Amino acid sequence: MPREIRVNAFTLQSPVHQTPGLWRHPEDRSTDYNRLEFWTDLARILERGLFDGIFTADSLGTNDVYAGTLDGALRGGIHVPKNDPLLSLSAMALVTEHLGFGVTSNAIQEPPYAFARRMTTLDHLTKGRIGWNIVTGHSASGARAVGAELIPHDQRYDVADEYLDLVYELWEGSWDDDAVPRDKASGVFIDPTKVRPVRRQGGRFSTDAIHLAEPSPQRTPVLYQAGASGRGRAFAAQHAECVFISGPTARALAPIIADTRRQAAQKGRDPAELLFFSLATTIVGRTEEEAQAKLADYRRYIDIEGALVLYSAWTGIDFSLFSLDEPVRHQQQEAGIHSALEVFTRADPNRVWTVREIAEHVAIGGRGPVFVGSPGQVADAIEHWVDEAGVDGLNLSYALMPGGFEDFGTLVVPELQRRGRFKQRYAPGTLREKLYGPGRARLPAAHPAAVSRRPQTPG
Amino acid sequence: MPREIRVNAFTLQSPVHQTPGLWRHPEDRSTDYNRLEFWTDLARILERGLFDGIFTADSLGTNDVYAGTLDGALRGGIHVPKNDPLLSLSAMALVTEHLGFGVTSNAIQEPPYAFARRMTTLDHLTKGRIGWNIVTGHSASGARAVGAELIPHDQRYDVADEYLDLVYELWEGSWDDDAVPRDKASGVFIDPTKVRPVRRQGGRFSTDAIHLAEPSPQRTPVLYQAGASGRGRAFAAQHAECVFISGPTARALAPIIADTRRQAAQKGRDPAELLFFSLATTIVGRTEEEAQAKLADYRRYIDIEGALVLYSAWTGIDFSLFSLDEPVRHQQQEAGIHSALEVFTRADPNRVWTVREIAEHVAIGGRGPVFVGSPGQVADAIEHWVDEAGVDGLNLSYALMPGGFEDFGTLVVPELQRRGRFKQRYAPGTLREKLYGPGRARLPAAHPAAVSRRPQTPG
Repeated sequence: MPREIRVNAFTLQSPVHQTPGLWRHPEDRSTDYNRLEFWTDLARILERGLFDGIFTADSLGTNDVYAGTLDGALRGGIHVPKNDPLLSLSAMALVTEHLGFGVTSNAIQEPPYAFARRMTTLDHLTKGRIGWNIVTGHSASGARAVGAELIPHDQRYDVADEYLDLVYELWEGSWDDDAVPRDKASGVFIDPTKVRPVRRQGGRFSTDAIHLAEPSPQRTPVLYQAGASGRGRAFAAQHAECVFISGPTARALAPIIADTRRQAAQKGRDPAELLFFSLATTIVGRTEEEAQAKLADYRRYIDIEGALVLYSAWTGIDFSLFSLDEPVRHQQQEAGIHSALEVFTRADPNRVWTVREIAEHVAIGGRGPVFVGSPGQVADAIEHWVDEAGVDGLNLSYALMPGGFEDFGTLVVPELQRRGRFKQRYAPGTLREKLYGPGRARLPAAHPAAVSRRPQTPG
Repeated sequence: MPREIRVNAFTLQSPVHQTPGLWRHPEDRSTDYNRLEFWTDLARILERGLFDGIFTADSLGTNDVYAGTLDGALRGGIHVPKNDPLLSLSAMALVTEHLGFGVTSNAIQEPPYAFARRMTTLDHLTKGRIGWNIVTGHSASGARAVGAELIPHDQRYDVADEYLDLVYELWEGSWDDDAVPRDKASGVFIDPTKVRPVRRQGGRFSTDAIHLAEPSPQRTPVLYQAGASGRGRAFAAQHAECVFISGPTARALAPIIADTRRQAAQKGRDPAELLFFSLATTIVGRTEEEAQAKLADYRRYIDIEGALVLYSAWTGIDFSLFSLDEPVRHQQQEAGIHSALEVFTRADPNRVWTVREIAEHVAIGGRGPVFVGSPGQVADAIEHWVDEAGVDGLNLSYALMPGGFEDFGTLVVPELQRRGRFKQRYAPGTLREKLYGPGRARLPAAHPAAVSRRPQTPG
């Protein structure tokens, strides 16, 4: 039986996420990114479209590789300004019942004790709909913002491991399941014998305190992570429940997924329970012609400089140094092979791209595929992609906000439903239960967080 | 003309704030403190009652002086569990239009760069209704929770001064007012010549980055502070717009207020613009008899141990060491004279209190007065208190949640309105404009934050 395809909406609290210049389109609302109603309207649209969740990227860094300054990023609004993604969640939770919330927070920059309480608070307020996208911060600018040195790539994951050990113990170990009787008759709100402090000294993160919030529906939020590097895959295999990946072709993703699943199995986890979401953008019309006309219209608004700001940040190459019609040379392709350039080089190794062509491609779709066409054509492309890559769903980007998500919900979802590839309605329960089934609100025993749990009183 | 009396609702995201045991009352909803609807329902009640704002305390510390353990605090739910107060604000903002939000955040424990963005994000989402209660953390348990040593009292304010200098520059100095044209025609979202990094090195807090969020309606949130000590008053005189104080009698507050205002004037600020809010609780019925019956009913639910947990934390004296019927001795009164014991000793220096009597008094009303009676009697008491102390308003606590606030809004507010002491409707604009008048969305030029501002382009 074909498997259900899951879909998260991929967003950033900024006027531009993956589509430089499109904020200028008359139907685009991205410039309202700092208004609460923008987010509550979006949440309603996503829940109507049966999206599994809204996944919000974040970082304290800025895109300053292009021309060695922030000017291009500022002009184009390219990930700046950028608001904190945690603070609109309770309003979005209020206007929805099922939508999941995957939010990004940095496991080096945010102090773990307060962060753990923040996640538990959100898990309470959303009735168990919170996920955490664990990032470690790749940019020197993000480190400078908080007055720190950028830690080398692999070491950042070591720090994150230590951070996770601490927050796992706060979430899973500090309070027993039956620690909070709330008993009006006896006057006992919490049973003191069922709560204990977490004590860590001498490492990078120290604490000596009980978790300040009582156990929430999921305790540990659903754990998201994006990492395709060797160390990143090991980290995902250890910790992640949902893994976000991006790549040029479905074929390019399959070996990364297989390797990560293999490592998870070696660690005693069920490899099938690592759910992979790959980046994709859809531009859909009622007919193929309508979709192609939309694409042609959207392309009129592309911000070439903005696209190169993004592309320079992804590759580490300053593309302001080249003329737009210059072919991208082999050594630049090599330098970028592990990041954005593979979008082009692996998909068609013989084609020579100019800087402008790359920018135009990046400006709608980023590092992932763009599926354009009628509902049937887009559903075909999605099915093919998902099955070939072996992913469990899409992290869906958009050309127009919120129109791209609205079109997906009204045009593509019904087609996928007809094919038995999309849920007819939300499953009950928490985000983790929606992903793994009834009774699965908490992390499974094979997850490393479970070692923090104390034996519970039977009954 | 008599001045308008302002009122904030004083809360904590915990089952118990100032009323140990009252969560057991059948009409009390405090045990739902971790549900989103609890907070949105409360926000609607407060806005119907024309409350100026909801003021939420917070700390990462716990009350562990009583018996030298957390057990009493846990049993009674005394400030534990305690959720993060920032995360429900957007939902409360969604269901209200005018209510202000004063939230507590620690200026030593929360990294300033990310905190500044958090406040700016909230100021955007609430359309300028955010205030920040600046605290520095007085408890050893709070320091241990984040793996730090407790900094001595006066030094904490020095650290907070440095913290404020940094966040002021992020809020006021990094972006010009006209830095964000959002111009679809030219494609310029931000004018790069009107944004600049904040650079701080070598002190306790470092950064080298632009503020990541664009200017919000108020830029700097309305600044709240609670500090009656010598150093605390100097800090308030320097930074605070709203000052929260508590004391046993109106007479005891007047000299503190006068001294703080004098110091503010010395610093070039308008002393009348420091607004003082003092703690008070009202128990009001349609008649005096009804109010007294309510008080008698409420007292049946008092948690004596819980009250002593609070009182031990406030005074630093472990009251588990004394029997409940033991008179509180002079040396204990002396030790606590600058904190909670003054509630009793200054109000009636000749009375000898037993431990139990103190606990019963603390359990409804905390360190402030309790006004019990008909709407007219309570309005009389409030007017008398406010005028004698010279405060601008009340930080209102409650016996029952949310009934105490509901009663105040429906019974006391109309009476104060009839007397010309309470607004008939909300003023338009941001929280700061509601406090200081139209055109006052930003801090005045005499405030120390203003030195961070750059000269703006005319026009």
